[in-house]
Amino acid sequence: MKLTIERAALLKSLAHVQSVVERRNTIPILSNVLLEAAGGKLSLTATDMDLTIVEEVEAEIGAEGATTAPAHTLYDIVRKLPDGSQIEIAMAGENGQMTLSAGRSTFTLTTLPREDFPASTQGELPQNFKVPATELRNLVDRTRFAISTEETRYYLNGIYLHAAESGGVPVLRAVATDGHRLARFEMPLPDGAKGMPGVIIPRKTVGEVRKLLEEADDSVTIALSETRIQFSFNSTILTSKLIDGTFPDYERVIPSGNDKAMEVDRKSFREAVDRVSTISSEKSRAVKLALSDSMLVLSATSAENGSAVEEIEVGFSGEGLEIGFNSKYLLDIAEQIEGGEALFHFSDAASPTIVRDAGDESALYVLMPMRV
Amino acid sequence: MKLTIERAALLKSLAHVQSVVERRNTIPILSNVLLEAAGGKLSLTATDMDLTIVEEVEAEIGAEGATTAPAHTLYDIVRKLPDGSQIEIAMAGENGQMTLSAGRSTFTLTTLPREDFPASTQGELPQNFKVPATELRNLVDRTRFAISTEETRYYLNGIYLHAAESGGVPVLRAVATDGHRLARFEMPLPDGAKGMPGVIIPRKTVGEVRKLLEEADDSVTIALSETRIQFSFNSTILTSKLIDGTFPDYERVIPSGNDKAMEVDRKSFREAVDRVSTISSEKSRAVKLALSDSMLVLSATSAENGSAVEEIEVGFSGEGLEIGFNSKYLLDIAEQIEGGEALFHFSDAASPTIVRDAGDESALYVLMPMRV
Repeated sequence: MKLTIERAALLKSLAHVQSVVERRNTIPILSNVLLEAAGGKLSLTATDMDLTIVEEVEAEIGAEGATTAPAHTLYDIVRKLPDGSQIEIAMAGENGQMTLSAGRSTFTLTTLPREDFPASTQGELPQNFKVPATELRNLVDRTRFAISTEETRYYLNGIYLHAAESGGVPVLRAVATDGHRLARFEMPLPDGAKGMPGVIIPRKTVGEVRKLLEEADDSVTIALSETRIQFSFNSTILTSKLIDGTFPDYERVIPSGNDKAMEVDRKSFREAVDRVSTISSEKSRAVKLALSDSMLVLSATSAENGSAVEEIEVGFSGEGLEIGFNSKYLLDIAEQIEGGEALFHFSDAASPTIVRDAGDESALYVLMPMRV
Repeated sequence: MKLTIERAALLKSLAHVQSVVERRNTIPILSNVLLEAAGGKLSLTATDMDLTIVEEVEAEIGAEGATTAPAHTLYDIVRKLPDGSQIEIAMAGENGQMTLSAGRSTFTLTTLPREDFPASTQGELPQNFKVPATELRNLVDRTRFAISTEETRYYLNGIYLHAAESGGVPVLRAVATDGHRLARFEMPLPDGAKGMPGVIIPRKTVGEVRKLLEEADDSVTIALSETRIQFSFNSTILTSKLIDGTFPDYERVIPSGNDKAMEVDRKSFREAVDRVSTISSEKSRAVKLALSDSMLVLSATSAENGSAVEEIEVGFSGEGLEIGFNSKYLLDIAEQIEGGEALFHFSDAASPTIVRDAGDESALYVLMPMRV
């Protein structure tokens, strides 16, 4: 193997693939990136056995071949080389060592043979559809914060992606919940997604996809089976195992009869919750909402710190209500509302509340109250 | 106590004083800031018993008085209030509670009586002199990184400040060392510093002074005795206990006969060390310098990662040398050299090396070699 590549191009690809590689690995080969030089391209592959990323980048190939080298070390070296460098990579004879040179620097890296690198799982991905990158970014952002971190509830450790119907219209729907709050996002069902199985995408995969999406402009191709999902865009292919579990029947958690509607300026609400919660104890983080005609009073008390009260004008009329929430959950939702106004639908102090963006129907949040 | 104060002014002062307050305190009053309203000013005091900061800020005083309130909570509240707010602070009757209101927010905070707040140590500070803020910033920056973190060598856990002579000229000198490297900074001895005792300023104090110096433009007044030091500038007074110990005779560590002089471009050197050290094992961080006519070869090897070599052109002639250093120590020093060229004075592979800024005589660094 022998090739020449521009530093910026190699750095970008290495940044993507090394992110999948865990810092500590009991299996040494999993610390390495597979480098394959052929047909005018360098292909880079990294895997943690659940999640595999493959990226192709143009390079001047002197001699085709393949090897594997430590991903983080390689990334650090390329990152520290001066911008504009031309990097030469070559296998250095018998010992299975790889040399990397640029300018007056030469690095000799220990490699492991490509044969040791785990082969990626093959198998059909019968379902196949395209989603605009911007919509996929929204889908992740609006739901990811609600993913459960409780390992025992492994079936909640991801985003549940499935086809559904909303008001008679077929939609692609993403749901995440940790039992205290639920986030649901939907978009028109893309061509080719009809009849797709409901799948749970693991948190790490969601995070890696989201990072890569920062650089995606066009559409992302999603292919899936009941056990695997694949995201392809630009020169990157990310393939992940799915969580093998059953996502709970979330529809039953979303109340339909909440009749107390309150409209509030999103920014004022977020800032007021943030201020008032300064007083809440770190453990409960409770904030009380007292709603009356045109007025919301936020308050918090703690034996240790004292108390806080703040008033906000809101759009509301009818019989009032007092209800408590975890302030962190309120802030998480407020962060995701991009329009000016947030819409709350309350039932009573013991029942789940619905929150929406007044200007955007695509996302819906359900929040369990807490006693205050 | 009753007063009105502009949010920005209060925030700035609280930011300064809360920084001294430890996050966890077994003595509750040490979590509080002492607020004293009198004569058109609000005075804020915080202490950790070793280090005390007092800051005065203009306020509209409705009723004079004093109390103490939780420093971090108060800071968080003021930070979260909208920019431009007018803040009203008042004692709220019998329970010893303090109210803070701004706009439509009202906070009631638990206080502790001012009598419980530790009185600041009094006593003469006979020595008194002024130092330009920029010079004091340099003094801290050039030496702080070499302060030892070994708690058993408590007399090295600070910067040793003392009067000395350099080439017959009286200087104010700062020295820090951890036994592996030593940093020395000197400036002309200010009026009033003649005959000052040598003092060791603790690391936390150094850090707090440095933070506050970001906002200082003019000169800083330093007053000291054998047990305490005080820094005064703007509306801030910071008083600290000194480390009760004897700083070692550092002069003996600084070699005088190092005859191999090498001049190297600071930036190229820093970047090359950074790159080559990517390969060093995390434990040793060793980098080897091989010096010959006009050429420095940096290299590193590790059984795990492989090896790295880089050449730099340098100003050197004479008999060559091979010497090893901890790359982190080389980088720390290179960070502090602001001129274009760094000047090394070597003796041999087992003896301390001197490093200087070719364009600035004020700082000198001594570095112990390591076997490679």
